[in-house]
Amino acid sequence: MFLSKYFLPIVKNTPKDAQIVSHRLMMRSGMIKQDAAGIYSWLPLGLKVLKKISSIIVEEQNNSGAHEMLMPTIQSADLWRESGRYDDYGLEMLRIKDRHERDILFGPTNEEMITDIFRTNIKSYRSLPLNLYQIQWKFRDEIRPRFGVMRGREFLMKDGYSFDIDKDTSYEAYNKMFISYLKIFNKLGLTAMPMEADTGPIGGDRSHEFIILAETGESKVFYDRKWKNLNIDIEKISYDENLQKIVDRYTSLYAATDEKHDPSKINKNDLLETRGIEVGHIFHFGTKYSESMGAKVVLPDGSLKPVFMGSYGIGVSRLVGAIIESSHDEAGIKWPIQVAPFDVAIVNLSVGNDSCDTIAHSIYNSLKSFGKDILYDDTKESAGSKLASMDLIGIPYQVIVGPRLAKDNKFEIKSRLTDETNIISFQQLYEFIK
Amino acid sequence: MFLSKYFLPIVKNTPKDAQIVSHRLMMRSGMIKQDAAGIYSWLPLGLKVLKKISSIIVEEQNNSGAHEMLMPTIQSADLWRESGRYDDYGLEMLRIKDRHERDILFGPTNEEMITDIFRTNIKSYRSLPLNLYQIQWKFRDEIRPRFGVMRGREFLMKDGYSFDIDKDTSYEAYNKMFISYLKIFNKLGLTAMPMEADTGPIGGDRSHEFIILAETGESKVFYDRKWKNLNIDIEKISYDENLQKIVDRYTSLYAATDEKHDPSKINKNDLLETRGIEVGHIFHFGTKYSESMGAKVVLPDGSLKPVFMGSYGIGVSRLVGAIIESSHDEAGIKWPIQVAPFDVAIVNLSVGNDSCDTIAHSIYNSLKSFGKDILYDDTKESAGSKLASMDLIGIPYQVIVGPRLAKDNKFEIKSRLTDETNIISFQQLYEFIK
Repeated sequence: MFLSKYFLPIVKNTPKDAQIVSHRLMMRSGMIKQDAAGIYSWLPLGLKVLKKISSIIVEEQNNSGAHEMLMPTIQSADLWRESGRYDDYGLEMLRIKDRHERDILFGPTNEEMITDIFRTNIKSYRSLPLNLYQIQWKFRDEIRPRFGVMRGREFLMKDGYSFDIDKDTSYEAYNKMFISYLKIFNKLGLTAMPMEADTGPIGGDRSHEFIILAETGESKVFYDRKWKNLNIDIEKISYDENLQKIVDRYTSLYAATDEKHDPSKINKNDLLETRGIEVGHIFHFGTKYSESMGAKVVLPDGSLKPVFMGSYGIGVSRLVGAIIESSHDEAGIKWPIQVAPFDVAIVNLSVGNDSCDTIAHSIYNSLKSFGKDILYDDTKESAGSKLASMDLIGIPYQVIVGPRLAKDNKFEIKSRLTDETNIISFQQLYEFIK
Repeated sequence: MFLSKYFLPIVKNTPKDAQIVSHRLMMRSGMIKQDAAGIYSWLPLGLKVLKKISSIIVEEQNNSGAHEMLMPTIQSADLWRESGRYDDYGLEMLRIKDRHERDILFGPTNEEMITDIFRTNIKSYRSLPLNLYQIQWKFRDEIRPRFGVMRGREFLMKDGYSFDIDKDTSYEAYNKMFISYLKIFNKLGLTAMPMEADTGPIGGDRSHEFIILAETGESKVFYDRKWKNLNIDIEKISYDENLQKIVDRYTSLYAATDEKHDPSKINKNDLLETRGIEVGHIFHFGTKYSESMGAKVVLPDGSLKPVFMGSYGIGVSRLVGAIIESSHDEAGIKWPIQVAPFDVAIVNLSVGNDSCDTIAHSIYNSLKSFGKDILYDDTKESAGSKLASMDLIGIPYQVIVGPRLAKDNKFEIKSRLTDETNIISFQQLYEFIK
């Protein structure tokens, strides 16, 4: 992509109302534009990151045996009356009347709708286990939306739902998601800590939230120093293993956010403190919705039984902010390679200079032939402004072409993650790519 | 994918309220579930098709130089008051009040919002030309939603917007989209006919709709028999060519839906009649929104000028229905290869029979190693029911493994598009895949 033809509206000044670093950096780097309180457009650079995160989630959820589907954003209020949550949900639910004065709503979550889909289509225990998920926009009418995409009103969420014949297999489904979530956060380059959580309005008997560690995170996190020695290679864990053992290893160690921190539960010498952000939440709620909404299957003996369910959420748009909170410096964002909007940036410091143009174009073409996604700054901005913008938007590698080195057919390569720079030749660049 | 583990709720009986074939086939093949009037969930099989169509659109729009972004579904009413359309739009607009009693709405289209994004971020003529698009859910509160996803209330739309410095370059942008749309429909395996159209509530001075030909289409289409000799290889056309000439070749021949058909405009002997479905609509509207909303750029001489705009829509969810209307038979859907939910289906007619199981598994594994996406029917349904289901869901190739042929290490391969079947060996299958 040639920057001169791209839509990347970089903002030099810090937006006034952006209180946290991810909000500031997303606004400044032209990733998002605020359209209304807590409602954002995703500009091209931001959308690329959102789509990369979504693909990683889809890939890993499919690996776990879950099936992707897509529910509408608008739901009928009648479904929520069946579960009793229509009145309970409060003002965060965006309630609407359609042209025929029927009550509808913009879904804040989908337990009711998925239970309806299940009861309409699944009649026999033979169709179990089943895990269905979607990545879809939700709306919660926060009274004071803030912190950019971290606490917006319209937000992208992965929500999944498991259906099982009894409590034991239902816990197995829960454990699969527990492991799948750790795999996802690991693939995103994040350190995630599962913590016991309240079930809240979803209900149920077991719940964990996943907190990723970030210096500038929203809440304090207290944890056992033995966490650092856990040494589980989550990528290598297969869904066919005994997952309960692995879940137990994670959950046996103390970890809590400040809301739930209880100093009496951990030896003072073992206690470490940092900050974190909640990015996922999983719930096992058994038959809460299947009972009230009649989602039952026929057993081998002909009897009917309500299914056991769990639900599993990841804040997809929130993750974009969370990744920035956990990976940035004074100059801007440092994207982990797997979610970076582009693989490589090429900065031509002297557009119009023949040797710079020739070298920059030739790097562009050869990197492209290797399948790399490249942002090429071919604009006439000043060198200082170009370098500052590139540090701001945080593409993992910058290839910097300037007139002095160009004379010797050389250029600089900078790793944005380490800020290390090296002077290299074409030959060295090719070796590096391979 | 093993069918026994998949969520594919096939319906044997024809749904009563489904009046058109695509609606019936989508319901019966477990692609969608109706949640409310004109509001559908996309079950796993349906979502796969929707995602494939979306990817083809994204790829081709990016090739044309347009940039993908994503706007929220919820918009502020104030933007629509600026353009004057808030009062004009009528009951199809889903109007909402948030918890602070502010007027918001579920976007039926995005001219106002994109104009706001433009005026906030673009100040200079140097940033032009620019074309931004998104694929996002829209809501139009149809008084009588019907025909399944063909006329739903919540629907997926690709909407794009071009910004140019003057009328001439703006028409060039329009022509690019005209060609891009023909490329997209061609890639989807459809025959699309551009026709002059009214600009309606969008406004403007030039507009075309794209009608795809389908025997069971919603409206009659009248056209010049010379269409059949047009012989333009749309795939080979580059965006750098003189596109006006190519657009002229398409638009010089008579073509009209029955609403606009004027027999006096065409020689009776040249007239052909068929049926079609509208799947795309493009508009050139100049400065209608940029004037009213103040979207101006600074020219080289320092003066301010409102930008020239166009907007470009494709009904993405509607296309799923339209493709089925144009490609089906009595037994079910015939997916064009490029949008099929799976590449190949394997039907094991005798699960439990050793040679059938061995052959079916070995075909599954080798096709997978070639990167094919396969649905393997490993259920214990009757042979007749399995074959009927496969014809219904319309995967382009069926590999049918039965006990009689399995003894000789052979099996049947059926092309769903031609319904031709052949008895083949492993060796022949591999040669076929290559």
